[in-house]
Amino acid sequence: MNDRPRLAMLGGGPGSFIGGIHHLGARIAGIDLVAGVFSSDPEKSARAAHDYGVASDRCYADTRAMFAAEAAREDGITMVAIATPNNLHLPAALMAIEAGVHIFSDKPATATLAQALNLRDALARGRSAYGLSFTYSAYPMVREARARIAAGQIGTVRKVLVNYAQGVMAGPSAGWRTDPGMSGAGGCIADLGTHAFHLAEFVTGQEVAELLADLGSHEGRALDDDDAVLLRFAGGARGMIHASQIAFGQRNAISFQVYGDRGALHWDFAAADQLRLVRGGEVILLGPTSADLLVRVPGMRGIGDGLIAPFATLYREFVAVCGGGKQCSLPGIAEGVRSMAFVERAVESSAQGGRWLAIH
Amino acid sequence: MNDRPRLAMLGGGPGSFIGGIHHLGARIAGIDLVAGVFSSDPEKSARAAHDYGVASDRCYADTRAMFAAEAAREDGITMVAIATPNNLHLPAALMAIEAGVHIFSDKPATATLAQALNLRDALARGRSAYGLSFTYSAYPMVREARARIAAGQIGTVRKVLVNYAQGVMAGPSAGWRTDPGMSGAGGCIADLGTHAFHLAEFVTGQEVAELLADLGSHEGRALDDDDAVLLRFAGGARGMIHASQIAFGQRNAISFQVYGDRGALHWDFAAADQLRLVRGGEVILLGPTSADLLVRVPGMRGIGDGLIAPFATLYREFVAVCGGGKQCSLPGIAEGVRSMAFVERAVESSAQGGRWLAIH
Amino acid sequence: MNDRPRLAMLGGGPGSFIGGIHHLGARIAGIDLVAGVFSSDPEKSARAAHDYGVASDRCYADTRAMFAAEAAREDGITMVAIATPNNLHLPAALMAIEAGVHIFSDKPATATLAQALNLRDALARGRSAYGLSFTYSAYPMVREARARIAAGQIGTVRKVLVNYAQGVMAGPSAGWRTDPGMSGAGGCIADLGTHAFHLAEFVTGQEVAELLADLGSHEGRALDDDDAVLLRFAGGARGMIHASQIAFGQRNAISFQVYGDRGALHWDFAAADQLRLVRGGEVILLGPTSADLLVRVPGMRGIGDGLIAPFATLYREFVAVCGGGKQCSLPGIAEGVRSMAFVERAVESSAQGGRWLAIH
Amino acid sequence: MNDRPRLAMLGGGPGSFIGGIHHLGARIAGIDLVAGVFSSDPEKSARAAHDYGVASDRCYADTRAMFAAEAAREDGITMVAIATPNNLHLPAALMAIEAGVHIFSDKPATATLAQALNLRDALARGRSAYGLSFTYSAYPMVREARARIAAGQIGTVRKVLVNYAQGVMAGPSAGWRTDPGMSGAGGCIADLGTHAFHLAEFVTGQEVAELLADLGSHEGRALDDDDAVLLRFAGGARGMIHASQIAFGQRNAISFQVYGDRGALHWDFAAADQLRLVRGGEVILLGPTSADLLVRVPGMRGIGDGLIAPFATLYREFVAVCGGGKQCSLPGIAEGVRSMAFVERAVESSAQGGRWLAIH
Repeated sequence: MNDRPRLAMLGGGPGSFIGGIHHLGARIAGIDLVAGVFSSDPEKSARAAHDYGVASDRCYADTRAMFAAEAAREDGITMVAIATPNNLHLPAALMAIEAGVHIFSDKPATATLAQALNLRDALARGRSAYGLSFTYSAYPMVREARARIAAGQIGTVRKVLVNYAQGVMAGPSAGWRTDPGMSGAGGCIADLGTHAFHLAEFVTGQEVAELLADLGSHEGRALDDDDAVLLRFAGGARGMIHASQIAFGQRNAISFQVYGDRGALHWDFAAADQLRLVRGGEVILLGPTSADLLVRVPGMRGIGDGLIAPFATLYREFVAVCGGGKQCSLPGIAEGVRSMAFVERAVESSAQGGRWLAIH
Repeated sequence: MNDRPRLAMLGGGPGSFIGGIHHLGARIAGIDLVAGVFSSDPEKSARAAHDYGVASDRCYADTRAMFAAEAAREDGITMVAIATPNNLHLPAALMAIEAGVHIFSDKPATATLAQALNLRDALARGRSAYGLSFTYSAYPMVREARARIAAGQIGTVRKVLVNYAQGVMAGPSAGWRTDPGMSGAGGCIADLGTHAFHLAEFVTGQEVAELLADLGSHEGRALDDDDAVLLRFAGGARGMIHASQIAFGQRNAISFQVYGDRGALHWDFAAADQLRLVRGGEVILLGPTSADLLVRVPGMRGIGDGLIAPFATLYREFVAVCGGGKQCSLPGIAEGVRSMAFVERAVESSAQGGRWLAIH
Repeated sequence: MNDRPRLAMLGGGPGSFIGGIHHLGARIAGIDLVAGVFSSDPEKSARAAHDYGVASDRCYADTRAMFAAEAAREDGITMVAIATPNNLHLPAALMAIEAGVHIFSDKPATATLAQALNLRDALARGRSAYGLSFTYSAYPMVREARARIAAGQIGTVRKVLVNYAQGVMAGPSAGWRTDPGMSGAGGCIADLGTHAFHLAEFVTGQEVAELLADLGSHEGRALDDDDAVLLRFAGGARGMIHASQIAFGQRNAISFQVYGDRGALHWDFAAADQLRLVRGGEVILLGPTSADLLVRVPGMRGIGDGLIAPFATLYREFVAVCGGGKQCSLPGIAEGVRSMAFVERAVESSAQGGRWLAIH
Repeated sequence: MNDRPRLAMLGGGPGSFIGGIHHLGARIAGIDLVAGVFSSDPEKSARAAHDYGVASDRCYADTRAMFAAEAAREDGITMVAIATPNNLHLPAALMAIEAGVHIFSDKPATATLAQALNLRDALARGRSAYGLSFTYSAYPMVREARARIAAGQIGTVRKVLVNYAQGVMAGPSAGWRTDPGMSGAGGCIADLGTHAFHLAEFVTGQEVAELLADLGSHEGRALDDDDAVLLRFAGGARGMIHASQIAFGQRNAISFQVYGDRGALHWDFAAADQLRLVRGGEVILLGPTSADLLVRVPGMRGIGDGLIAPFATLYREFVAVCGGGKQCSLPGIAEGVRSMAFVERAVESSAQGGRWLAIH
């Protein structure tokens, strides 16, 4: 047994996109995946355990059993990755807190705002660290944007546009994300909208004070799949979020533009290693310099490596937080609560025919 | 004297961007610019006349005098281009109707909806043809988009995004466009918003039924300079317009995305000769074929020639309409009235704190 | 009669791409097209005259007759644009010199190097100014590249890549360009290669000392249509030119990259208003600033207006040269001679199986 | 002990870029990294072992010792990744063959052509499988290009352009790659040129028959760092390779264009998930469809994950080859020999002042 953190995963079994990302991101961060309940179907769970290199006796049938068994081992888990449907986030997190295990959770934090507040309280009483996978905030050029704005390089922020478009639900596809019982009150607004909302606040360093939303749905879905949200920031800036799962042909198009009174910043996931800074009469493309190319993979800054490197970054920061470090760039429960408030206010605003509502 | 149309221009003097575009677009369409009141400043007007190759005795001090003098000439003007501030559009157009001269007008049609309705009535009673410079509708690939949608290639339209961003007012710049007395009740919404609105209706072939707007202004301006508008189309589609003059560093960024249930179309002015069609698992870049490269300039289809070629297209269609042809793709007074209704409803919706209002 | 320059055009009739570009470029530069022999077919020539607004009595059947008749008029031509096949450039230019008329010629200067030297001598003895349409050198961002390199911003130039690809001859198309009797000894190397060669020297401000060429042809053509040329500059830099007319699907793809020991510059016709400057760890996109957007058309700097604006720039400089100005950026007979030497050495090098040959 | 392949790595220690890529690529392919000599410096080697999760008793001081010790273990290694300087490739591979261990080697295969031939013979006599990391050939869209050409979709190939530019040696940087004793006779031509050459043959499915090269060097280097190579394919097509390490500011720009008589294909590493197919009047962007987005990471097709996924693909195919499968897309010793012949002929051609030489 070495001294590396030991991770369990809940969910992330065969057919899961995010499970493998967790696995590799954690590994790059020096974390070993050693246990899990990868699926409610034992056969599938076993298959995932084999793929992940997890010993079969640590592939559990049940979450509660896992925490119990792992607590009894000298080399038991020290952290858990929650990659289940939204409605299972809270119960899993509460068990982890009880077991004193640190929590790295997929977004959104929970299925409802009430659950997020519940979780915040439980975390405050326990000793588990908590990290939330708002992945886009871990891209180096997104953090560069935040730093440049904080340094005043574009002056006072006036306008923020965030666009997040996927085509995954353009047809009659379904899944747990379209089921209010598993996803919560928000569909696209919880899945994509929370990413956009978090980016808007993260990059500007400002809180959204009010929103007005217009949520649509198609293909007979019970939850929204195509959303427009207008924002007003506490500092006076305006914003627009477009989040859609019916954007035919878009795989994962996420981008933002921030306009200030002395410059602007544009970022697009399609060229994630690049940040466009407009200042004076010039446009400057910021990006990893040649030197970064030589950085070895554990850093993996700027080698166009999709979601894995940002996950590795978040996991590395999570390890630091678990060790008692401050929760700096890593999103935590505060961001979790705010984003659930965003979801609930957006659903409410739209249901009222488009009204400005405060997010407190 | 040959048989070519003879054009006068109102406005378009030194410092005007659009004057030269009118001049060259008209010339490519086989129209001679022969007269005008290019500026209220006689010295500037004379300078423009010289630049445009207009004889000095046909450079007039006053619009009314121009119509009178030209009516008396055997080779007098047959058409007039109106390139003045918005508040002068109606009086100039009424004089042209009285003189039986055809009218090619810069957008927006007038300064107010009431004026636009007034103009529509006057045109109905007179015999002047009327064309409106919604230039973007004349780009070959924009028309291709309209044709593809009409042919059902993307299925039923569900979502329309139009983005029009300029940085021209990011600083404390002013001009007649920021003066309600000259521009009308709308600033950016009249200048850029009407282009976006017209594109949304032109490309989809569907009317917008309702809008909800949030207009902002900066630098102490009396008129809006940064606008968000949500749309609902009569056919059920949703839309979003972002129109801003404070988008620092943007010269003239206009683009649209239309999503249907079987495909999508994207167009961006930055690559105006290209239309992106998403259908099935493929993305097809439509554009002028090699053959078009050989087309001589009078056609100028697809040689990346900025605003001049689209103006030439509109002028060519205008000549056809003047000759009794049907107003097919060329925007006319109907589009002028609709776009002024858009402006007034947007201003009203925003003033009411963001309410859905119908456009009839 | 006003004091504006009066232009005749040779060639440029129906079906010609470049004729209309000359017409509009000249007009923007304040030059009136008043006469011409637009085609060897009188009916076609008359049709072009009508399109260009040239009076029918100044549409001539024969070049010699045109110079004679125009010399007899008080308002006779002062300059001639040569837009004919290459083999007619020299005879037309010699007649113009005899008539004391200034010459604005399409590239390449002539059909052979011997002819170019002959023309140089004749120009030295006469009083006609001479401009050559290496259009790409008139793009603002190409000139910016030249200025930045001259100012040492990328350090010592080490490598120059120029790529010029068209697909126009991917199929069995023909025309005068594939006929050695009309085009000269070079096909693609004379048509596209000379543009690339001129750009390489123009942008770097350095002369090419040696070349090695490999020219290919397809579809049974007598002349090359697909060329590779290696370059060595007098200052020690290396270069590569790729020029091809069989690049299936390419309309007009021309670009360059210049690498120095302290930076680099990239330009691409597909985004002609942008110049990419790499320096230190930054990439800076240079382009027309917002201010340029307001520049009226006669300047037309940076409004994405295809070939017309650069032609207007060249014509404007040509007017200055005609008035006794120095031939600064405007390509002249010196560039014409060098580019013909390039063509002949490239053909010779390739015929010898790829040998380094000096260009003197 | 499970049944997964057990990998040792030679090289790849701290400061190595490629070591981590091997580690993660192998892991995704279900291979465990369990041993190695990561650096000649024991302290660095131990640090790497810790980072990779390799037990300290399997971090060896010497390659020979490693093979001996591992052969004695029941759970000893079954394969070795060679990530050392080029001159150590052959001795390491020979030891592996002797030990009956499979070999996955970094490119180029060896430091010289003679060594590559030596290695080919040794592999023929032994029972080790051999895979070579020409990574770009493992990108899904590169393979798609190969398949499309094989299916005749662009007709007969006429022209192949490959461009590989890095700026890593624009300054006075050095390292083993600039040392003939460690790298071999080729610098850039061996490091980047072999990638370009392999791509040219891989994508077209055709062999290069002859080449003509012009290699340059800067900063006082003993080996080339800036290369131009002209190609003639056995099937009649022509080609150009540009490979440069002094391309200031370029991180890793690799792209190709293949022109046929009925279409064309373009690929660029900067948008590696996209393949541009030109056919008829259309440009089709081929890419992973929406469905691919849901593919779980072990497949990792098309999620923009940089070098890791292609390495995983190669490792997965390598496992199949080790199990007795045919060497289909995975580059092997045949490709290794051809690319070393390319290097030596290019060096020779350039030394002779640019002569066409055959590659047999």
